[in-house]
Amino acid sequence: MAFTEFRPLDEKSLIEYIKSVPALSSKLANNFNNITIKEVGDGNLNFVFIVSNSSGSFVIKQALPYVRCIGESWPMTKERAYFESLALKEEGRLSPEHVPEVYHFDRTMSLIGMRYLEPPHIILRKGLIAGVEYPFLARHVSDFMANTLFFTSLLFRSTTDHKRDVAEFCGNVELCRLTEQVVFSDPYKVSEYNRWTSPYLDGDAEAVREDNLLKLEVAELKSKFIERAQALIHGDLHTGSVMVTQESTQIIDPEFAFYGPMGFDIGAFLGNLILAFFAQDGHATESNDRKAYKEWILKTIEDIWNLFHQKFIALWDEHKNGAGEAYLPGIYNNSEVQLLVQKKYMTDLFHDSIGFGAAKMIRRIVGVAHVEDLESITDAAKRAASERRALDLAKTLLKERRKYEAISDIIAAIRQF
Amino acid sequence: MAFTEFRPLDEKSLIEYIKSVPALSSKLANNFNNITIKEVGDGNLNFVFIVSNSSGSFVIKQALPYVRCIGESWPMTKERAYFESLALKEEGRLSPEHVPEVYHFDRTMSLIGMRYLEPPHIILRKGLIAGVEYPFLARHVSDFMANTLFFTSLLFRSTTDHKRDVAEFCGNVELCRLTEQVVFSDPYKVSEYNRWTSPYLDGDAEAVREDNLLKLEVAELKSKFIERAQALIHGDLHTGSVMVTQESTQIIDPEFAFYGPMGFDIGAFLGNLILAFFAQDGHATESNDRKAYKEWILKTIEDIWNLFHQKFIALWDEHKNGAGEAYLPGIYNNSEVQLLVQKKYMTDLFHDSIGFGAAKMIRRIVGVAHVEDLESITDAAKRAASERRALDLAKTLLKERRKYEAISDIIAAIRQF
Repeated sequence: MAFTEFRPLDEKSLIEYIKSVPALSSKLANNFNNITIKEVGDGNLNFVFIVSNSSGSFVIKQALPYVRCIGESWPMTKERAYFESLALKEEGRLSPEHVPEVYHFDRTMSLIGMRYLEPPHIILRKGLIAGVEYPFLARHVSDFMANTLFFTSLLFRSTTDHKRDVAEFCGNVELCRLTEQVVFSDPYKVSEYNRWTSPYLDGDAEAVREDNLLKLEVAELKSKFIERAQALIHGDLHTGSVMVTQESTQIIDPEFAFYGPMGFDIGAFLGNLILAFFAQDGHATESNDRKAYKEWILKTIEDIWNLFHQKFIALWDEHKNGAGEAYLPGIYNNSEVQLLVQKKYMTDLFHDSIGFGAAKMIRRIVGVAHVEDLESITDAAKRAASERRALDLAKTLLKERRKYEAISDIIAAIRQF
Repeated sequence: MAFTEFRPLDEKSLIEYIKSVPALSSKLANNFNNITIKEVGDGNLNFVFIVSNSSGSFVIKQALPYVRCIGESWPMTKERAYFESLALKEEGRLSPEHVPEVYHFDRTMSLIGMRYLEPPHIILRKGLIAGVEYPFLARHVSDFMANTLFFTSLLFRSTTDHKRDVAEFCGNVELCRLTEQVVFSDPYKVSEYNRWTSPYLDGDAEAVREDNLLKLEVAELKSKFIERAQALIHGDLHTGSVMVTQESTQIIDPEFAFYGPMGFDIGAFLGNLILAFFAQDGHATESNDRKAYKEWILKTIEDIWNLFHQKFIALWDEHKNGAGEAYLPGIYNNSEVQLLVQKKYMTDLFHDSIGFGAAKMIRRIVGVAHVEDLESITDAAKRAASERRALDLAKTLLKERRKYEAISDIIAAIRQF
């Protein structure tokens, strides 16, 4: 059995496939008798198998030519696996402690073999729902963001390298279009895919569709998302794309990666933490009111931005005399102008992040794909109450983002809603 | 003699070449006895031959692998001819009345055969120096800008088409880098290529290099130039890239074309008209004080922006229910929100245009490539006086561009300096 053209693998054909790939079979010491295969893909798009025996383990992720959670009626290029593998390798090079190693990529089969993130790794979102604190989360995520965004931007690179990679990732257009549709378009119009906690939020969803100022602002963000090739971004950096233990933080699933605005990644993560915050009231019990946990989430939001800011500026200072094309050392050659440009850059990035984060919150409440943090609140009235507070905050953040100067202002706004 | 690999042509080998290309030789009715060939390349980069006989004529433009005006010490990819031919064809499709027809392109030879713009066509810049009014100039140039920029933007196109073409034009990176260097970098630092009317402007050139706020603003424009793929822009739309008669306006030389910010084209043209305005005092004689001509230039600047604005909005309205991805009809579906987004879009574009225009003015006074409008003023003191006024205005426009609301404010500012 050869694998010279694409076909979806099942647990049986997967073993044949692994036998044909030394980079994979060697992980199992070429012993296929005691092998265990488990299909665990709980995402929206792909099949994911965990393969292990007593000698070792790995994950096989295969993209199918449609959106898994919708079915063949929503086609989606399987070429996304190619861009995911490219992004995993680049992010892994820049932030090796926080990205699983890629062992194997097969473009024909749209298949990636990579490190299995062993227990007790779980999806961060599930930890947030369970109320688990992760003491290193802010440090690790800010590390990942600072390293992947700085080193793929023009602060570090030449225009030549930049345009070459921008051109390559233009090929991931179908995944970009999916984001454009579900984040920047559908929530603001009547769409068969939209849903919300009805009837409670019927009026709220309609208000989103009729808010001209909101539509004006989301158009600006959409243009920036499509047109501005600022850095290689993960493209889907929510709390479901992060696996954690108490000591480890691993960023997975960059199949939406392309050269876009940095704030889209930062905002995605912060926006999903804010959703987790508003969901906590729905998870409170008599024995655990979640108040302390909510404070931990707020502290984490604040730490992530502040640590990111600090690390990003440190990288900039360290490489300010390097090959980065944006601010040539011969021009930005005194500490006063250096401070000026850094302040402006980081302020713009902050406002972008708040805007994109707010857009990601809105789409999770009135768009097609919701978050388990809120969906798992079974009492619909209670869920709607949390969702409305998150939605109202997000609308304010999106429209007023330029008025906020520091992350502490955002924390204060979250407390107000 | 075959032309299977690149070599620079001279008048003799050019005839052999033409004989081997039916699309060209047919223009001459295959008659090579009474042929005339004239090398007329007065630009900085290429060789240009006019070929004609009694039956017809055309122009041959060949790119060499270096910058012609500097020599082999400044290498420059001859692949630029490929991007020039792509851009000529696309612009010709969108604005056929104002772009010369391409008859032939040879990628191996980096050679374009195109329509010869017969006398009395002259380079617009020379007409401006001579004090000639062109009654259709504003109408024609605004037509060209509105058509080429609108139809290659996301106001008209899908993201799929956009990203495909963005990727293709990423290949023109060497020409983009040249612009980055000579427009956005060299004038703001010590560079062996910079020159200015010395000693008069020594202090002014130094002041540019030490103006932190100016450097802050030019960095923002440089980022936008590199990162923002808004539309297919000409990339070098100054008054030397336009040929005119009283009735005809033809845009040539788009070898710097790529997907960039629209304001770069609009600003280039307006900025060069402002330079022409300030040069007039140096061309005044006792019999012609050029006062009426200066008014015509100001009127032309005002008309170009206003006509562009009007045509661009008309195209937008006409196609607002089309396939353009930026503002979907299902969202921007009432006249109030339509007005809001158009006002914001055009205001941003206006500020971009003023900023880029100012940067183009500055680089023509203290950077490597100057303009004949000013260079032809032989009295250095007089020239420096014109240049200083233009430079001071440009610095103000670049730093304060967001404060201007209409083109009439710019005209008022020009009059003040």
